[in-house]
Formats: sequence, C-alpha cells, structure tokens
Amino acid sequence: MKAMSFSPANHCNLKLQKNPIKQPILANPTHFSSHQNQKPSNKKHQFPSFSIKASKSPQTPLTKNPDTPPLVVVGSANADIYVEIDRLPKEGETISAKTGQTLAGGKGANQAACGAKLSYPTYFVGQVGEDAHGRLITEALKNGGVNLDCVRNLSDAPTGHAVVMLQPDGQNSIIIVGGANMSCWPEKLSDEDLKVVRKAGVVLLQREIPDLVNIQVAKAARSAGVPVILDAGGMDAPMPPELLNAVDIFSPNESELARLTRMSTESFEQIGQAVVKCHKMGVKQVLVKLGAKGSALFIEGEKAN
Amino acid sequence: MKAMSFSPANHCNLKLQKNPIKQPILANPTHFSSHQNQKPSNKKHQFPSFSIKASKSPQTPLTKNPDTPPLVVVGSANADIYVEIDRLPKEGETISAKTGQTLAGGKGANQAACGAKLSYPTYFVGQVGEDAHGRLITEALKNGGVNLDCVRNLSDAPTGHAVVMLQPDGQNSIIIVGGANMSCWPEKLSDEDLKVVRKAGVVLLQREIPDLVNIQVAKAARSAGVPVILDAGGMDAPMPPELLNAVDIFSPNESELARLTRMSTESFEQIGQAVVKCHKMGVKQVLVKLGAKGSALFIEGEKAN
Repeated sequence: MKAMSFSPANHCNLKLQKNPIKQPILANPTHFSSHQNQKPSNKKHQFPSFSIKASKSPQTPLTKNPDTPPLVVVGSANADIYVEIDRLPKEGETISAKTGQTLAGGKGANQAACGAKLSYPTYFVGQVGEDAHGRLITEALKNGGVNLDCVRNLSDAPTGHAVVMLQPDGQNSIIIVGGANMSCWPEKLSDEDLKVVRKAGVVLLQREIPDLVNIQVAKAARSAGVPVILDAGGMDAPMPPELLNAVDIFSPNESELARLTRMSTESFEQIGQAVVKCHKMGVKQVLVKLGAKGSALFIEGEKAN
Repeated sequence: MKAMSFSPANHCNLKLQKNPIKQPILANPTHFSSHQNQKPSNKKHQFPSFSIKASKSPQTPLTKNPDTPPLVVVGSANADIYVEIDRLPKEGETISAKTGQTLAGGKGANQAACGAKLSYPTYFVGQVGEDAHGRLITEALKNGGVNLDCVRNLSDAPTGHAVVMLQPDGQNSIIIVGGANMSCWPEKLSDEDLKVVRKAGVVLLQREIPDLVNIQVAKAARSAGVPVILDAGGMDAPMPPELLNAVDIFSPNESELARLTRMSTESFEQIGQAVVKCHKMGVKQVLVKLGAKGSALFIEGEKAN
C-alpha cells in the first residue's frame, strides 16, 4: 500500500467567511497528480512531514480548456447561519449575539464553487428550496461560474441550513436542517442528471444527501468509466457497502475513518491500519484528510516507498 | 383612571408561520376607537372579562381612502429562523433539527405588514442589510403593500435576525442578532424620513432599534401633532424618560410592565397599580397587552366606569 501526501486543501467556500467552520474540501484531480511525489515516506510517523503550506498551492487556473470533461458535484447546498455568542442560551432564554452572518455553503456547493474557482467547467447537481436561502446559494454558485442546469428548486422543502453557534472557547454548537438536501429527491434520478454524470471528467460526492442518490450517481459514473470520489463528511450513519464499492476514492478525515472502521486513528500507523480495513471493505484508494497537516492517499496493493 | 378592553390583536406576521413566536401586534387606531365601550368595568379583576374573540375583529378593510394620513412604522425588520429541535445542543455538539423555516418578521416590519393588510396606507422606516435576509423582508413588505421609500439597505451590517430554537416542551430559546436594526443608524435622521413622520396619521414605535432613533421620531411626530404609540417590546434596557415623555400611548405586556415599574403584575389590580407608576413616569395612556385575554387601555385622570 502506497501513501502519498498532499497539501492542505484551500477553503473554497462560496464567499469569504469571517468565522468559517473547518470544512475540508477535497483537492481536485489536478491537485492530486501534481503532488504525487512530495511525501518523504521515511517520515511517515511524523505528521508535520505531511504538511505543505496552502500558500504553495497553485494560484493560477489549472485549466481553461472548454473541452475538458467537467467536474460534476452531486450533493448538498446549505445556508450557513453563523452567530457569535458568549454562551449557549438556556431553555426559554433569549440572548443577544455579538454578531451574525449567513453565507452560502454546504459540502457539495463548496466543492462546486472550488472547482469553478479553479476554472474547471463545473456542474452542481442538487436541490434547494424556493426561498431566500435557496436564492443566496444559487446566486453565489452562478456568480462563481458553476453550471446550475441540474439544480432543482423545491416548493415543498426549505433550503438546507445550519445554525452555527460560535463560542469564545472555540467550541461550535451546530443545528442542521436537512431540508431540500435530504428530502424530496426523485426515486430515480432523471436521465438528464445521469447524462451529465456519465459525461463527467470526475464526480465528487459527499454524505449530506441520501445514500440512495449517491449510489445511483456512483453506479452511473462507474458504468461510464468516470472516476468517483466520495468525501465521507456529512451524516454520521453506517456506510452502505453498495456505495463504498462503487467509488474510486474514498476520502474520510481521521475521525470519520475511526468511526467507519471502529479503529483508533491517532497515529499515522493506526491510520494506515484503519485504511487496510477500508480496502477490505471494497475501496481501493483512500485519501485521508489530516486537517492542517495535508492529506495522504493510500492505494491498495502498492507499498509506501 | 379609565381602563378599556380590546380584542386580542391578530398576528399579522409577514407570512403564515407554522410555529410563530407570540409577538403581540398593536391594534391600529381605528381598532382602538371601535372598541372603546366594550369593557364591562365591573369585572375588572377577572381576566376573562377582557377577552373579546379575535374572530370578532373587523375582517373587512378599515379604510381604502388614499387621502388617509398614513400609518408610519419606524422600527425593526428581522429574519426569523425557526428550527424545531428535540433538545438544545451542548458545547461542540452537532445535532439535526426536525425541520426549519426562515420567515420575514421583526416587531416593526410585522406592524407595518399588519397596517397594510388592513388597507391602511403604510410606510416602514427601517434598515436591512444587503443580503438574502434583507431581500426576504423587503419583498414580503413590498408584496404586502407597504411603502419602502424610507428603508435603507446597508452594506456594512447584516439584516437583523433571530434564531428561534423550538423545543417539544414549548420552551423557545432565542438568539438575536441586532445587525442593521441596531447599528449604522445616522446620528440625525434625514429630512425625508422626518417629513414622512410629521405627515403621518399615527406613528408606531417599538424597542428593537436604538432609543436615540425612537426619541428623534417621537419628538418630530409630537411637534407636528401626530400621535405616537410605543410598543415596549424589544430590548430589555431601562426606558429613557425622554422617550416615555414623548409618546402618547405606551404599550407594554404584563412582564414588560413589571420590569419597567419593578412591581408585580400578576393580577389586574396589580397591573392597575403599576400603570399608575407609568403615569407618574410621564405617560398618560398605557395600553397593557394581556396576550390571549386582549388588552386594556388605562388613561390618566379618568376613572374606570
């Protein structure tokens, strides 16, 4: 099994966030190939060795070729409502926040914004409600250059949103409303959506929409030879084997990897052992996100060199 | 001192709310005069005697005369973000809400929407941010027929908003972000705004914007002989005597009256005693809102009959 390191992913949220939550964003495929040989494997037990400063990431567009098969992100779009408070309110209590801000977000929409920012032709496939938060997200994505032909506007569900209560000690308490991300998906995705998936250069998924949608997308992509990358972030529910078997790269962070494998992931060695369990679960490539330390790609059958 | 009863105010929020917070909305002046003789004063110690069913309120527009001097509401506009949760999150915890909804609200905007719904020519004077929540509010007010010529769109502050965490036991925990309601008001209101105030038929104020703004408005209205009604709802801060002296009708609910006077308001007799203290503070007419039981107007120097 070979492990390769990558630079920490830039936070490509849709808008500059004053108090962003850390939402690791998957590097795009070009990132992957450009960093493949940077990890000194003899330092695999020391996290700092995996650190490549974000500022060293390419700042120039990676591609502007209109013929590039697009990046297709199927996933969540959220309004992130940040409120900065001294402490949490008690039951029945009204308190004042120091400040607040509502920004377009959601793991899927963030990935799409990131792709478009890197000048990739990018499609976002997702659902929002016909409300103010839906307009906030679609406008931000549109202004960012993301193709929204496959975004559905629902009248029956609110746009997904999250209330993020930022506290002085750095603790965030979060309330998530799944809304249009989690409900009212068609039982079978439309031919138009699946056509976009099959023509993609790569498909990105996360776990803030129903697994059944992700499974359909991953299978359609695989049948067309399109690589699928699944970010493990999102719902804390068992991973369906059907989904794991249909993706090419599975990308958890340390705690998601620990939850999935029920193994400790505190050291790089432990992470490696947990990844072996992932391989046994059916996924050949595991990209483990290590926060500020970067990320490490493990490929089944290839030894670290 | 005379006490008169009124029907419970209808909730005229900008949009139908599935789980509205109780926000008593001041009846408009026509309501006042039309109900003046309805209270059986010999039952003044029994709350039910003050109750007049809301269904008996006039359902037809009170006026459609374009020459009617307008209702001018100076005050707050809020996005009310309701999330329905099983329990409050702990520090650092992420939980899922059952559902959520974001609606236009705020005491000032609600009053303005109510006025326009009753076919009163209605102006709203207030501030919103240049953001999704600001658009939500201005669209709702505009669709409701409220004149928005005196609404300022700020680029430096978010639209005021409130996160309302609804819990199964009926307890609501609320986090308020003052935003554009509380900040960036000009030191002196513009001539245009004050002109609208001076030409009003009646001016409604609440306490979700800075007292200094309310004081300017109340003085301008008084100087032009325009009656001013101040809803005590909003910030829980001492009431400036300068404001109380410049209003014609002061309208607290029982708990706001208790806070202001530091007296108990559990019985109608206690409410009457607290109102006497308000009279001594300089306000001649006190309209006490009694929730579902209606409201009671106390006029200094007039005995209950």
